[in-house]
Amino acid sequence: MSVLEYMHTLGQQARAAAADLAQAPTAKKNAALVAMAEAMDAARADLLAANTKDLQAGKANGLTDAMLDRLRIDDAGIDAMMEGLRQVAELADPVGEITDMSYRPTGIQIGKMRVPLGVIGIIYESRPNVTIDAASLCLKAGNAAILRGGSEAAQSNQAIAACVTAGLLAAGLPEHAVQVVNTTDRDAVGHMISMPEYVDVIVPRGGKGLIERISNDAKVPVIKHLDGNCHVYLDDEADVSKAINISINAKTRRYGVCNAMESLLVAASRADQLLPEIAQHLQEFEIELRVCAKAQTIIPDSSSAHVVAAKESDWYTEYTAPILAIKVVADMDEAIAHINKYGSHHTDAIVTENYTKARSFLARVDSSSVMVNASTAFADGFEYGLGAEIGISTDKIHARGPVGLQGLTSQKYVVFGDGHIRT
Amino acid sequence: MSVLEYMHTLGQQARAAAADLAQAPTAKKNAALVAMAEAMDAARADLLAANTKDLQAGKANGLTDAMLDRLRIDDAGIDAMMEGLRQVAELADPVGEITDMSYRPTGIQIGKMRVPLGVIGIIYESRPNVTIDAASLCLKAGNAAILRGGSEAAQSNQAIAACVTAGLLAAGLPEHAVQVVNTTDRDAVGHMISMPEYVDVIVPRGGKGLIERISNDAKVPVIKHLDGNCHVYLDDEADVSKAINISINAKTRRYGVCNAMESLLVAASRADQLLPEIAQHLQEFEIELRVCAKAQTIIPDSSSAHVVAAKESDWYTEYTAPILAIKVVADMDEAIAHINKYGSHHTDAIVTENYTKARSFLARVDSSSVMVNASTAFADGFEYGLGAEIGISTDKIHARGPVGLQGLTSQKYVVFGDGHIRT
Repeated sequence: MSVLEYMHTLGQQARAAAADLAQAPTAKKNAALVAMAEAMDAARADLLAANTKDLQAGKANGLTDAMLDRLRIDDAGIDAMMEGLRQVAELADPVGEITDMSYRPTGIQIGKMRVPLGVIGIIYESRPNVTIDAASLCLKAGNAAILRGGSEAAQSNQAIAACVTAGLLAAGLPEHAVQVVNTTDRDAVGHMISMPEYVDVIVPRGGKGLIERISNDAKVPVIKHLDGNCHVYLDDEADVSKAINISINAKTRRYGVCNAMESLLVAASRADQLLPEIAQHLQEFEIELRVCAKAQTIIPDSSSAHVVAAKESDWYTEYTAPILAIKVVADMDEAIAHINKYGSHHTDAIVTENYTKARSFLARVDSSSVMVNASTAFADGFEYGLGAEIGISTDKIHARGPVGLQGLTSQKYVVFGDGHIRT
Repeated sequence: MSVLEYMHTLGQQARAAAADLAQAPTAKKNAALVAMAEAMDAARADLLAANTKDLQAGKANGLTDAMLDRLRIDDAGIDAMMEGLRQVAELADPVGEITDMSYRPTGIQIGKMRVPLGVIGIIYESRPNVTIDAASLCLKAGNAAILRGGSEAAQSNQAIAACVTAGLLAAGLPEHAVQVVNTTDRDAVGHMISMPEYVDVIVPRGGKGLIERISNDAKVPVIKHLDGNCHVYLDDEADVSKAINISINAKTRRYGVCNAMESLLVAASRADQLLPEIAQHLQEFEIELRVCAKAQTIIPDSSSAHVVAAKESDWYTEYTAPILAIKVVADMDEAIAHINKYGSHHTDAIVTENYTKARSFLARVDSSSVMVNASTAFADGFEYGLGAEIGISTDKIHARGPVGLQGLTSQKYVVFGDGHIRT
């Protein structure tokens, strides 16, 4: 069977499973999720052995330590995946929810019913736990899923897939409800994103390069999560302690996450007061500062190796590392213009006590999350109450911001009459 | 300037205008809509003259009478467009609406703010009034629009565009907020759907062929409205008068619309009782019936030229004409399977007095509108309370069913804190 035929077979099987899944009762879906966790618990040895093979192959192929780290599964990692499955089982089922019911002047009653999208294709890179995150969220939202993980995690993903299938079968759900692509042939991705007859939406999770490539070539809608170049703007009227706490938290809570602050913008009138203290805190974390010319004159030890002049490219950069760009701006207008130009439309925050400026910033910053006096670190499906997320969309179509169960569904109109006809 | 350069220029201008429009106050947008109506009123002679040129060219090019009808503008048509503009001015502005505000356990308050999509490209065929519908809805939702009408309506569309521009300028909005493509070069469409840097979403309005071609080639998300192959299913437990009234209304209210019933499905146990009477009514409207073998034995004058045997292809067909396919089905399961297989996921209705079957039909029919005891003719933006629609999406991503102002917007998250940081 060619890769094309193989992918079409997966597509047909997914389409058939999706029709069943769309009608599956909540209890059955939850039972499958719990059974998957149990299957993982029983298969710990297999999971670890499969992962060891991937790690050995990865070492032989010269993966960096960071890449091997992302690839590694240990007992705690298995526990975390099992816990994730149980958490998704506990989330409310979005399917069938009817909202916005109202009577129209004609007497018909109209509302919206939430329904699954159908078949979701997920394309991701090295972390094997994405297999479980994606499988569980797609399943709970009533969608069939076709998962294509990184080739470096092939053995681990297949071992996880076996647990997923066991869980589906134990609950009496179609075994093709979740399928993990079992070929490392690169053409598989190209076929997967070109079969709208079998796949309704693609969610790529990975580097910007992967996502741009997929968006460009796809014949299927793509929920994009590009990069997270997040900003905090300290306004003329920022409260000092809020400004300092939020800046430190947004940068230092974790470096490798997409909601970390990558650029700090400071109103010129407050730079002398705020920047030295913030810089001192950040330097305690050994964070490299890439600063504009004005900031360079303000930050005390700007001779240190940890403070360097920012280049134009720094304003565009998501470091996901202990590096921060800093720019002094004239006012909020300049800050907003900077964010909308250089940012990635992910998450941006203002620190201000001014009511009018808070409202204006919220309206004018074109990002999936816009915050007032809160750390960008809050941009996250769990923090937003979505339960879990399959990604954070920096797109505007269909879903924006953290994409949870709701983002994996659609709404159809339902109309109730008593024999009503339209005159 | 090449067509490519021309389209890129329109794109850049639209992108710049969109940034302004997104922040435009409601009053300014409404003033522009009213000013457009006034400009049309003042330009009646120009509009009619331009339309006459299109009609003459159309006749010379052998357009059918039906096509010329769609192309024609008269004084009543101008009045209708002006009325449409005033109605959109009266609709609530969706931009900036904040909903779903809630406090999270951390103390942050989170909600969703409705925001424009950016730049919307509309591609349509012969009806010049679409220029006004599309311009007014995009503008009210805060989006810039690039409109590409049919070449046969080129003169009419440019005359309407002049009124639109006059209205924008009179209200102090950017003149490039709405641009009507001023070339009949076919490559313009190809470029328009391939510039994601300038266009955020494409809404094609026209025949299935046009929409499939655009969906296939687009590098930009497409809100699709394919065909409207709508069904009414008369259940075993249908009320007689509801069954008859709804069947007649859904077929005969208008033939050329996408919410007209194209296939009638009747439960076998009720066919003998219902079909003769329904057929008699429909034949009074001179509607051709294309019927299954079973129905042929039931409908009295099945020898008449107006009753013919249905072919397999009939079940797939949107006639938009006084033709109806009729099939006797064993039960609701067969009806649902038929609808999901042959239908176009537009609008489908059941007539039943049975509570459980009503619920089951609503959940299982995979269409953008699913109705109980109501005529499919209600599937319409005005009837649903959306005010006006730019189309009816048979798609699942982003928007489904009638697409009004809301469907032309997106939602971003807004987060309010008091110095909150994430621990």
